[in-house]
Amino acid sequence: MATGEEAEGQPGIGRVEAFSDGVLAIVITIMVLELHPPVADGLDRLWTLWPVFLAYMLSYAYVAIYWVNHHRLFSHARRVTNALLWSNMLLLFTLSLVPFSTAYLGEHHFSRDATMLYLFTMLLPALAYVWLQTIIRGTGVQGAAANRYHRATTRKGGVAALIYAAGIPLGFITPWLGIAAAALVAALWILPSGPADRLFD
Amino acid sequence: MATGEEAEGQPGIGRVEAFSDGVLAIVITIMVLELHPPVADGLDRLWTLWPVFLAYMLSYAYVAIYWVNHHRLFSHARRVTNALLWSNMLLLFTLSLVPFSTAYLGEHHFSRDATMLYLFTMLLPALAYVWLQTIIRGTGVQGAAANRYHRATTRKGGVAALIYAAGIPLGFITPWLGIAAAALVAALWILPSGPADRLFD
Amino acid sequence: MATGEEAEGQPGIGRVEAFSDGVLAIVITIMVLELHPPVADGLDRLWTLWPVFLAYMLSYAYVAIYWVNHHRLFSHARRVTNALLWSNMLLLFTLSLVPFSTAYLGEHHFSRDATMLYLFTMLLPALAYVWLQTIIRGTGVQGAAANRYHRATTRKGGVAALIYAAGIPLGFITPWLGIAAAALVAALWILPSGPADRLFD
Amino acid sequence: MATGEEAEGQPGIGRVEAFSDGVLAIVITIMVLELHPPVADGLDRLWTLWPVFLAYMLSYAYVAIYWVNHHRLFSHARRVTNALLWSNMLLLFTLSLVPFSTAYLGEHHFSRDATMLYLFTMLLPALAYVWLQTIIRGTGVQGAAANRYHRATTRKGGVAALIYAAGIPLGFITPWLGIAAAALVAALWILPSGPADRLFD
Repeated sequence: MATGEEAEGQPGIGRVEAFSDGVLAIVITIMVLELHPPVADGLDRLWTLWPVFLAYMLSYAYVAIYWVNHHRLFSHARRVTNALLWSNMLLLFTLSLVPFSTAYLGEHHFSRDATMLYLFTMLLPALAYVWLQTIIRGTGVQGAAANRYHRATTRKGGVAALIYAAGIPLGFITPWLGIAAAALVAALWILPSGPADRLFD
Repeated sequence: MATGEEAEGQPGIGRVEAFSDGVLAIVITIMVLELHPPVADGLDRLWTLWPVFLAYMLSYAYVAIYWVNHHRLFSHARRVTNALLWSNMLLLFTLSLVPFSTAYLGEHHFSRDATMLYLFTMLLPALAYVWLQTIIRGTGVQGAAANRYHRATTRKGGVAALIYAAGIPLGFITPWLGIAAAALVAALWILPSGPADRLFD
Repeated sequence: MATGEEAEGQPGIGRVEAFSDGVLAIVITIMVLELHPPVADGLDRLWTLWPVFLAYMLSYAYVAIYWVNHHRLFSHARRVTNALLWSNMLLLFTLSLVPFSTAYLGEHHFSRDATMLYLFTMLLPALAYVWLQTIIRGTGVQGAAANRYHRATTRKGGVAALIYAAGIPLGFITPWLGIAAAALVAALWILPSGPADRLFD
Repeated sequence: MATGEEAEGQPGIGRVEAFSDGVLAIVITIMVLELHPPVADGLDRLWTLWPVFLAYMLSYAYVAIYWVNHHRLFSHARRVTNALLWSNMLLLFTLSLVPFSTAYLGEHHFSRDATMLYLFTMLLPALAYVWLQTIIRGTGVQGAAANRYHRATTRKGGVAALIYAAGIPLGFITPWLGIAAAALVAALWILPSGPADRLFD
């Protein structure tokens, strides 16, 4: 069934990106709805919201990183195949769970259980992204620049997955070590130039 | 009134797709808001959410299938007519009811009544899609490939409607037979290559 | 300040349309969040939701009509001016109030007060639309077809405003006469061909 | 890592704008969800909502101004760099906090604390916007018109920041002086032609 579509070429990619943009924009924005203003007056009551706010910041950075990488990855795609559509849908599904585990993390004040669930939810999109990347590599542009890009991001993704995986046992000692692992991965992706990036190039 | 628009040709189609993408992205994402984190701590309390989570997964796959088919169907449209605009609006309306019946299904733990309502809500977009397909066929590209595409999806849509219709009496025996019918239709559409697809080609 | 932008021409219009599509897609979809599934089991309990559902259907049709007209109106725009940006923002603001008055109408079971508020909320976008139309006419394409389009929609918009205005005193007799006025306007816009349309051509 | 992307040129900018449009459309629309219809019947009960409604209007105008300026600023961008992506993400993050402080302002009836928080939340996007502007200036078009545009908006942004900063101590006297400062800034941006604009040209 994908055959007809594949023949159409580029235009289809634009609409897959537009739909992904829509879903990611909603995922990144609805998390702020968890920031319920305290009923009591007084700015000092605002400080009780810090775990919800911190969880929101971490997850915002996390989804933003996925958007930036998704945006770059799709600039390498040249054809819309059935496998591309569904691996992309799976990635968006795993990312749609982030608001849930973020709310859980914030409401349970970074408890050990909530941190475990959070790190687990962060691993799912990482796995879906690897699948999507493999598929786009298969259908996408071939060339030295594209290969270098794919090698670099695959290595970076591998390091990120290792840090997450290390974060889960570390979180058993204290949840903050698990959260630190998630923050470290975010920093690695957000600051791609400078020392952090040289690890991957 | 549509005459002026029809003369404009292609650009209008892009905006109909963009609006549809927006609505579908919201429909598919707001369903996750029903996953309320349990107040009590402990990951074992998470298991009480399984019906809500399962309902979310089923409906996510369902709306995703509609997006993929919508995306393919519109690549065959060549003119924006009044009938196209309104049959598309009707399809989006019926799909906007999916979050409601999904919440009902999850909160009532796949009870018989909730399963009936869910299967009924799944039938409405199927009927709206048939109407949209007929209209796009009328205004769209003619040709061997387009005809083959329309024949294949009409047949597939007919089989899907039959399975849903069978699911409603089966759900009277036990709701899970009804849910299995919905899952079977999803599998038929998601896995278009291989044995499932050969039924339609 | 708008001078630089005006010189850029067409591309800007696309982004104004994209933002409007996003806002309208959210406005039309979040209304379904008011359809809360009843806590008690049993499909007979669903019937208690009929006023909320009916209000949703009416408002969905109403916002959909605005999207269709907005889509057509913007195909006549050729330049993005400051006045166009802000009259469009005002239109989107008035439409963003529709979910509120729809929730009010549904929760208060079409009471007289709720119907008054609903009809008043429907008048606001009509006024904003007239302003936007005047501005687009000023900056847009001139020609016989564009003039015919503007004359026809202005006449149709005037008839719609008259019916709404008549609906408010009629709603004092019984709210359903007010709702019937809103439904009549929706029918006039949705069925543009046939007898209803001949009134305007 | 941004190197591959930068070479791609223009298309990337379109997708950054599309994602920003999505986030801004959601931010501007979800604020209306705070307008909960009163449970009691009677239109006189609606007046109790005036602080929530006024807060919504102010914030709608505020986010709309950012969208208009964002739209103009990006028409001057020519390359997508890593710094552009992340300064844009930071701007969207600060704007995503507006619904929270708007809800706080409305629910706490423009109390002094709520007004302080609101003005503080309005300062954050202003700072993020300055950073984004600097980056786009660096990567964007050079030329007399672009320089004039950047000089004018930088001056205007500076005046706006000064008025906000003045609003915080004024709000200690009475919150309404703080709100008046926010309204004055909105008026300066919305009415760019006429006397207000001559201050900056």
